[in-house]
Amino acid sequence: MNRILHIVVAAGSGRRFGAELPKQFHLIGERPALMLAVDAMRRFGCGGTVVTVLNPDYIGYWTEVCVSAGFDPGPIVAGGSTRWESVKNAVDAYGADADIITVHDGARPLVGRCVVEAVVAAVASGAKGAVPVVALSDSIRHVGADGSSKAVDRAAYVAVQTPQGFSGMEFRQAYGMPYSPAFTDDASVMEAAGYDVSLVEGSPINIKVTNPSDIAIAELLLRQCND
Amino acid sequence: MNRILHIVVAAGSGRRFGAELPKQFHLIGERPALMLAVDAMRRFGCGGTVVTVLNPDYIGYWTEVCVSAGFDPGPIVAGGSTRWESVKNAVDAYGADADIITVHDGARPLVGRCVVEAVVAAVASGAKGAVPVVALSDSIRHVGADGSSKAVDRAAYVAVQTPQGFSGMEFRQAYGMPYSPAFTDDASVMEAAGYDVSLVEGSPINIKVTNPSDIAIAELLLRQCND
Repeated sequence: MNRILHIVVAAGSGRRFGAELPKQFHLIGERPALMLAVDAMRRFGCGGTVVTVLNPDYIGYWTEVCVSAGFDPGPIVAGGSTRWESVKNAVDAYGADADIITVHDGARPLVGRCVVEAVVAAVASGAKGAVPVVALSDSIRHVGADGSSKAVDRAAYVAVQTPQGFSGMEFRQAYGMPYSPAFTDDASVMEAAGYDVSLVEGSPINIKVTNPSDIAIAELLLRQCND
Repeated sequence: MNRILHIVVAAGSGRRFGAELPKQFHLIGERPALMLAVDAMRRFGCGGTVVTVLNPDYIGYWTEVCVSAGFDPGPIVAGGSTRWESVKNAVDAYGADADIITVHDGARPLVGRCVVEAVVAAVASGAKGAVPVVALSDSIRHVGADGSSKAVDRAAYVAVQTPQGFSGMEFRQAYGMPYSPAFTDDASVMEAAGYDVSLVEGSPINIKVTNPSDIAIAELLLRQCND
């Protein structure tokens, strides 16, 4: 039986979103995005422990929100100043003996059973890392340091979602390396340590709440999921 | 006074979308996506002519839909077997004396005034090409021909929307070159001809209706735009 740790990262302070409250705390229907994300990982995560990483300034707030809602927040870890440091704190605190570690974004409240199970199953069957991906809807351009830009072949790229899953031993080793600004997600940390990452099928529903308009979109998709 | 041609490309047969009717004909609220797209380019396009490119199989259908709705479809051009050929047909038919040519995707029904005007203004002030872009919400990975994939720095890429605008003379010259599979959008055609393309600010609202769930999302965003 694999010991599984699910890390839900919600340590952002919301500067990008442009609102007072960080995006992971915004209501999607009746519950905050983060509560939906934690609940999804609990329901679909094949029995693992779900740990939430929060900005220390919001731990008291989040605990109160959960108590009011009658929702068990589970273990909470204080995040760091980068996403990398936040994940590392959770691995150090709860990941020492995990066979499988996944990292999910607290601003992806709509992740479904198929995606979570596909990620866990890929790692359980031997992949060192597995990330859910979808095709890009838009063309993309590469922007150089001088601001000049160049068309690139969209078909050669995929959009990466979470949860991303990893073999515990290799993940701990990868997170033992010094921080690099090239670490844009957990898969890139694993790759810097020399491990390949497999791709599994993500879902167009599994959106990240990034812009203010995404709140209403997430509510709509949530209603459709529940229909 | 600049002569402006707006080409709305809707020649797809909908294979990617997985529904009977191509996505550009799906209703967004009370009107088909394509009608909204054509109407937006007419209202916001600084007075240019709006030409629609359709798969020949759907020209009769679209004309009937427009007649029933009391909507003037404007000039219609038969598309080709690639997007490139479709745009070329429209340029050949209506673009001979245009100072500015824009190309808009018929599956982007929600494009707003700011985006269209920014594109036209950039070309009117001397840019050979201008495309609206937004930051990527998701991390992306490059997928090699062997299926292996690699994390790339999301911050160095932007997502490209439409309309894309171009100086007419250079655009006609670029579309005079032979077709290449590297032409993923009109900006890439211009770049292959040696012209730089400027970036202007796109909008998170200006989505492309790609997946079935995007229909409901587009309806929601449309209602918000009209509020």
